[in-house]
Amino acid sequence: MAAKQWVYMFEEGNAQMRNLLGGKGAGLAEMSNAGLPVPPGFTITTEACIAYSDSGEQFPDGMWEQTLAALKQTEQQAGKKFGDAENPLLVSVRSGARMSMPGMMDTVLNLGLNDDTAAGMIKLTDNPRFVYDAYRRFVQMFGKVVMDVDGDLFERVLDEYKDRHGPNASDTDLTTEELQEITARFKEIAREETGQTFPEDPYDQLRMAIGAVFGSWNRKRAVDYRNFHNIPHDLGTAVNIVTMVYGNMGFDSGTGVAFTRNPATGEKRLYGEYLLNAQGEDVVAGIRTPHKISELQNDLPTAFGQFLDICQLLETHYRDVQDMEFTIERGKLWMLQTRAGKRTAQAAVKIAVDMVNEGLITKEEAIQRIDPLQMDQLLHRRIDPTAKVDVLAKGLNASPGAASGKAVFDADRAEELGKQGESVILVRPETNPDDVHGMLQAAGILTARGGATSHAAVVARGLGKPCVAGCEALKVDLEARQFTADGRTVREGDIISINGSTGEVIMGEVPMIEPEMTDELRQLLSFADDIRRLGIWANADYPRDAQRARDFGAEGIGLCRTEHMFFEEERLPIVQHMILADNDDERQLDLDKLLPMQRGDFEGIFRAMDGLPVIIRLIDPPLHEFLPSHDELLVRITELRTRRELGQFSAAEEAELAEKESLLKAVESMRESNPMLGLRGIRLGITMPGIIKMQVRAIFQAACRVAADGVDVHPEVMIPLTGHVNEIKVTQIELEEVAKKVMAEEGREVDYKFGTMIEIPRAALTAGEIAEYAQFFSFGTNDLTQTCFGYSRDDAEGKFLLKYVEDGILPANPFQTLDTIGVGRLINICVQEGRAVRPDLEVGICGEHGGDPASIAFCHEAGLNYVSCSPFRVPIARLAAAQAALGEAARDR
Amino acid sequence: MAAKQWVYMFEEGNAQMRNLLGGKGAGLAEMSNAGLPVPPGFTITTEACIAYSDSGEQFPDGMWEQTLAALKQTEQQAGKKFGDAENPLLVSVRSGARMSMPGMMDTVLNLGLNDDTAAGMIKLTDNPRFVYDAYRRFVQMFGKVVMDVDGDLFERVLDEYKDRHGPNASDTDLTTEELQEITARFKEIAREETGQTFPEDPYDQLRMAIGAVFGSWNRKRAVDYRNFHNIPHDLGTAVNIVTMVYGNMGFDSGTGVAFTRNPATGEKRLYGEYLLNAQGEDVVAGIRTPHKISELQNDLPTAFGQFLDICQLLETHYRDVQDMEFTIERGKLWMLQTRAGKRTAQAAVKIAVDMVNEGLITKEEAIQRIDPLQMDQLLHRRIDPTAKVDVLAKGLNASPGAASGKAVFDADRAEELGKQGESVILVRPETNPDDVHGMLQAAGILTARGGATSHAAVVARGLGKPCVAGCEALKVDLEARQFTADGRTVREGDIISINGSTGEVIMGEVPMIEPEMTDELRQLLSFADDIRRLGIWANADYPRDAQRARDFGAEGIGLCRTEHMFFEEERLPIVQHMILADNDDERQLDLDKLLPMQRGDFEGIFRAMDGLPVIIRLIDPPLHEFLPSHDELLVRITELRTRRELGQFSAAEEAELAEKESLLKAVESMRESNPMLGLRGIRLGITMPGIIKMQVRAIFQAACRVAADGVDVHPEVMIPLTGHVNEIKVTQIELEEVAKKVMAEEGREVDYKFGTMIEIPRAALTAGEIAEYAQFFSFGTNDLTQTCFGYSRDDAEGKFLLKYVEDGILPANPFQTLDTIGVGRLINICVQEGRAVRPDLEVGICGEHGGDPASIAFCHEAGLNYVSCSPFRVPIARLAAAQAALGEAARDR
Repeated sequence: MAAKQWVYMFEEGNAQMRNLLGGKGAGLAEMSNAGLPVPPGFTITTEACIAYSDSGEQFPDGMWEQTLAALKQTEQQAGKKFGDAENPLLVSVRSGARMSMPGMMDTVLNLGLNDDTAAGMIKLTDNPRFVYDAYRRFVQMFGKVVMDVDGDLFERVLDEYKDRHGPNASDTDLTTEELQEITARFKEIAREETGQTFPEDPYDQLRMAIGAVFGSWNRKRAVDYRNFHNIPHDLGTAVNIVTMVYGNMGFDSGTGVAFTRNPATGEKRLYGEYLLNAQGEDVVAGIRTPHKISELQNDLPTAFGQFLDICQLLETHYRDVQDMEFTIERGKLWMLQTRAGKRTAQAAVKIAVDMVNEGLITKEEAIQRIDPLQMDQLLHRRIDPTAKVDVLAKGLNASPGAASGKAVFDADRAEELGKQGESVILVRPETNPDDVHGMLQAAGILTARGGATSHAAVVARGLGKPCVAGCEALKVDLEARQFTADGRTVREGDIISINGSTGEVIMGEVPMIEPEMTDELRQLLSFADDIRRLGIWANADYPRDAQRARDFGAEGIGLCRTEHMFFEEERLPIVQHMILADNDDERQLDLDKLLPMQRGDFEGIFRAMDGLPVIIRLIDPPLHEFLPSHDELLVRITELRTRRELGQFSAAEEAELAEKESLLKAVESMRESNPMLGLRGIRLGITMPGIIKMQVRAIFQAACRVAADGVDVHPEVMIPLTGHVNEIKVTQIELEEVAKKVMAEEGREVDYKFGTMIEIPRAALTAGEIAEYAQFFSFGTNDLTQTCFGYSRDDAEGKFLLKYVEDGILPANPFQTLDTIGVGRLINICVQEGRAVRPDLEVGICGEHGGDPASIAFCHEAGLNYVSCSPFRVPIARLAAAQAALGEAARDR
Repeated sequence: MAAKQWVYMFEEGNAQMRNLLGGKGAGLAEMSNAGLPVPPGFTITTEACIAYSDSGEQFPDGMWEQTLAALKQTEQQAGKKFGDAENPLLVSVRSGARMSMPGMMDTVLNLGLNDDTAAGMIKLTDNPRFVYDAYRRFVQMFGKVVMDVDGDLFERVLDEYKDRHGPNASDTDLTTEELQEITARFKEIAREETGQTFPEDPYDQLRMAIGAVFGSWNRKRAVDYRNFHNIPHDLGTAVNIVTMVYGNMGFDSGTGVAFTRNPATGEKRLYGEYLLNAQGEDVVAGIRTPHKISELQNDLPTAFGQFLDICQLLETHYRDVQDMEFTIERGKLWMLQTRAGKRTAQAAVKIAVDMVNEGLITKEEAIQRIDPLQMDQLLHRRIDPTAKVDVLAKGLNASPGAASGKAVFDADRAEELGKQGESVILVRPETNPDDVHGMLQAAGILTARGGATSHAAVVARGLGKPCVAGCEALKVDLEARQFTADGRTVREGDIISINGSTGEVIMGEVPMIEPEMTDELRQLLSFADDIRRLGIWANADYPRDAQRARDFGAEGIGLCRTEHMFFEEERLPIVQHMILADNDDERQLDLDKLLPMQRGDFEGIFRAMDGLPVIIRLIDPPLHEFLPSHDELLVRITELRTRRELGQFSAAEEAELAEKESLLKAVESMRESNPMLGLRGIRLGITMPGIIKMQVRAIFQAACRVAADGVDVHPEVMIPLTGHVNEIKVTQIELEEVAKKVMAEEGREVDYKFGTMIEIPRAALTAGEIAEYAQFFSFGTNDLTQTCFGYSRDDAEGKFLLKYVEDGILPANPFQTLDTIGVGRLINICVQEGRAVRPDLEVGICGEHGGDPASIAFCHEAGLNYVSCSPFRVPIARLAAAQAALGEAARDR
């Protein structure tokens, strides 16, 4: 049986063979076949690497023989001979995986040199200094990366020689003799450190270098990197053996890197730099200042012209921006690499749109070129990436964007300063609904506890404000109004910055870049709108949010949380009084006061969403959230009792104690061990129906009244937390009566729906029953994830969830990216069985996942009608939905 | 088209027509057809009742005509004529639904009487007093139940006449003339109250009486009763029209009720009583003391002999104990009713077993005759049902049985007194694991909060101690060591009693009946064992529980909770020290101390279960449960801080404050918003693996060492709270290594399994993946119900769940009876997909539902291998499992 083909000449490969040949190898092959000037060479496949790993570091059968044969062919093409003292072939050995991956052995240059071939090279080039410099570099690189010798040992020797030439001497000051000595010293170091003589035989060198590249695939840093980035371990890396060419053979030689378009701005102009008489590494190392690529026209016009043609050809060939390396050896241009150019979000959008307009790519391709998460950068203020920052601590990147401002430690103070026009960062151990008024006025939010779906994070994302949450390194001392971290203390009023995109907490102020909705972005999103099937709605609680959502392209409101309205300053006392009411009559008086306020809220939202549907969720949280904190009451009561006991007790304190004791009693009677699984949502609606009836009354009064002004309203009333069909049955029948009564009173009919959130596994499992009543379903995937996994979203992330993700127990944080296997199965069951009963059932998602691209792809597959996300994520969702549609189309072909 | 048949002569019916004719009608028909002496008559069907209700209280077409025809036939059979002044037929009109139902109109006797027919009767009987007494009774009954006149108005007149004969006069003292006057007065009352003349026409009387019976089906009391007992509202009641016979026509006449066997003890001997010269109601009303049925032999030997034959015949015919009514009119025996006799649990068991031994019924029938929940009575101490009790309040019947003892308000005191041999009832607002040492010594547990699956309830059931939980009427004042309820106060040391089977809290001591495992019960359960397919295992944490479970017939331990062991007095300080340890080394020292203790526990259980499997669950609860209460620490710290502030602060207090503050900090760092969804179970095992490794080491050391003594051990290690396959994967691999290492150290192999609880919806939904690792699944249906419904078991029952059940939103409390639709669907998915991957997967249930008969039936259907319940419920589970098997067999036929 013939051995498998482990080795491919560049001429045998092409761009489609990326998995087998790695990115670099496939690129070199593709260029070779396109007739571009690529130095002769070949690639050893990724499969060989895997075979090597699997067999305890043995080259697979036939690989070495095939390598020798390919080398022979390369010799013929180059007109040189490997290891030959007269006309030696030198090669570079470079790793090249499917995707570029730090932590792996990168490159050995000038392989094939030994004392004999060096002598031959000198004869050929008549440039002994060049040859010894190359020889020295080879031994150093080989010693370090192949023989695993500590690189500092070589550097120390080099410094020693440089010091002889004065304090600021550089490599170029070294003489040929010194370089020769250094080369010998380097070999000696390698021998001392490894106990092995430095290999003189070029074939030994080659074998060892190939083995080192293969071995580096399983080096700890590479494994860690793959674990972190969810890259499979069985891909392997290819090895490229390429004939050396030299940009350092005089001023008719040079080397450079270039992009076909500007990778920072997307501008359509060649972008890059070069150095004459230099090797590739010199450009990167920054020893000399490189020139702008356009100047090459003056230095080497022929090569430059040829390069321009090649750039054009490669961009047209690959239909994407190319990032290229080249070398000019004695006037002759050699292409050493081409690959898709990495670019900023801004550039990515501009390039994609430009290329559509140039006819180079289709709209569909443009859509697929943009990473939605990267695009998120464009929609938030961000820290200037060139700025130096003093990072104090790192938490969760809970809401993107960045802000600088005075640290403040309570919501009242944040509100006060915020209203005075000061930029403040609200710092809290964690936030709760009492803090919202301060969050509204803060430039950013920083918490020591809570995960990516904690209150702080959710509210901040809804507000489009940056937030760093769960920064456990922070010790917040509310009494002293300060926090400490990393041994440093930040007091109230000190300026800090937060980067909600990275989770960094930074000392002092930092320069910012403002976001912009560019014309290109608008155009790109209009391509997306043509392609996507999913509707994109937004979660918005206030008219201003609804307006913003609409501006960003939202086609409806998927979640308007009514309880946030209860927390507003002038309302909270009424709400508290209502909760503490002794009987229904007393309670009704408070509800009557709240009615016009809620009506006003809804009117504003309906006006903003003229012509579009608005889903309003009835009150959801447990009532104790609206009352003062249990612990604070307990502490104050204990203080007062102790004072009384010790005889230090005023009449005012006596009155306070009585009041607080009665309040604590009320709070205790509502206290729950697991409030997330307690008396909230529809359970509250059934237990205390006055509140939701008032809300429905307010919704339909508002709808009828704005309809009277000619606004086209489509209210959809959403009942939260249904778990059993009877819950929605009794509630919906009762509420629909209220709705009809209000419409009769107002003398106007409006188009409306009643429906429910699906956020309890049992609701999903009995969707057929529930769809008998509900006209729409909206997946509350935060809660559904909580109950499906049994993870408290308030606790899990800090306590164990992030560790689970880090350790690879969970592939991702299920509160960020929908768990398609478990939670997704519930969703699929629910959609199928709900639609079987009610074919026109409207189904959407309003959890945090509605703005996550991977989750959006799942929602597309599951056949949802829409996803609803925070207004600031609407553009991302539009793009992701289009990508999901394209992904499906591709699979269907 | 001919009208539907609405009326059936007794000869036309039979026992199978119970739905159409009601229980009474079907019984009378069956007896008629068996040739027994039944007074002639007929039945108007339940369908007629429904038609009457549905049509706005109109008799359905043809019904009245059919009634008249049937009446005509009855006249012929009786040789009398309805409304005839010479030889009048009188009838009784009786309701008779499918099941007996209080709240409905019961009976009108002597219908057909008016002044004319009364005169005719006098001529016939030559007994005017008898006739006027009957007439008076008829007008009174008809007035009250048909015309809806307040019965007190009649009683007052009757009392007025009786008073004329002295202070202790009775009905029998009234003269014929007086009875005649009374009859007239009664008619006058009816006219005054209703505005209608009392109907003189017997046909009007009949029509009105039938309408009244039909109408009573929808009377509020009847509707409430049906709602409460989940009886459908569309069954309707039948009406029986029966020729009157008279037991009060002299001392050759009489009336009585009898059971073919003793309904209290099950003894096979006729049981009942009779009165000579009396009507049926006199026996029940207790005006005269009735005689034992055996004495009838002396009074009326012929009739008695005939009755004995009939009893024998009916019992053989119905193959069950009969509860019969009879009347003897002038020496002739008439049977008025027969039905299956209600019986006590003890009697039910004895009768079923006896009848099998007599060859009357099969083992299968015997099994189906016993209500498992009723049988539960036999296994617990109970309050003498004849005792008068002073009920103070009512809570949840959380753990069956009854106890009297001194009320005590903390676990330490309960333990102290309990160890001194005092009987104590531990009264707490709610219990937590800190209270277990007191619960162990208490005779019963009473809590003001918490549901049927609260800590108190679960532990009490596990211990087989009576518990009343969630008795919200109790105001417990721990400081004052007392509680108040219903305006009364119970102080520490006062004697109270609790009835865990009914939820009653009773003042003072009450007489008790001790439970017994009778020979009959043993025999019955052995029948069950022959029939059932499900294994019956028990939940037991201690060797003594394991032994008890085995005595009751358990075939394995399905759940041994290891954390209870951590709460024992001498261990808790070590556990706390372990939890608070600064680093792993320090923690390991504590774990090393705990190891031999745990090993000792397991050795005891393994010995008790020699030859049977024992599933041991690794630590499950969150660690903060082992630490002092957060609130108590906060209160004490606040007291101390206030004292310091006020300058009243000793050095000892200073030290205490420092210690408490550091403890509070630790408690706070572990505190969770929703601990049920937090860091517990396998999550804890992964985060802090030392604990579970110690436990596995202890398990396998114990197993190897008792195996060395010849004990046949089968440990099964259960990992709690798995939600993702990777959790069990990493944990199980690591733990199995520990197990193998220990077995190697001990030089012995034991048969073992590793598996997991399924208590998270996601685990059920990904069972196929999990079964790749787990060798067994055990459904933790308490937690699975919690997460599937999103109900916190600590809160929901008190806050809304019981209301849900009351209002019919939920058909039952899902923590008591498994929700087969939602939770059951998860279980079915899990069993099917788990077994698809691992066909020999052992699957059981260890939640509270394992002892609930309805849930056991579901487990049988779902194909589980076993159910595991508390030791005291093992007999019930054996019976219920057999019934489930029989139910399935019946359906399959």
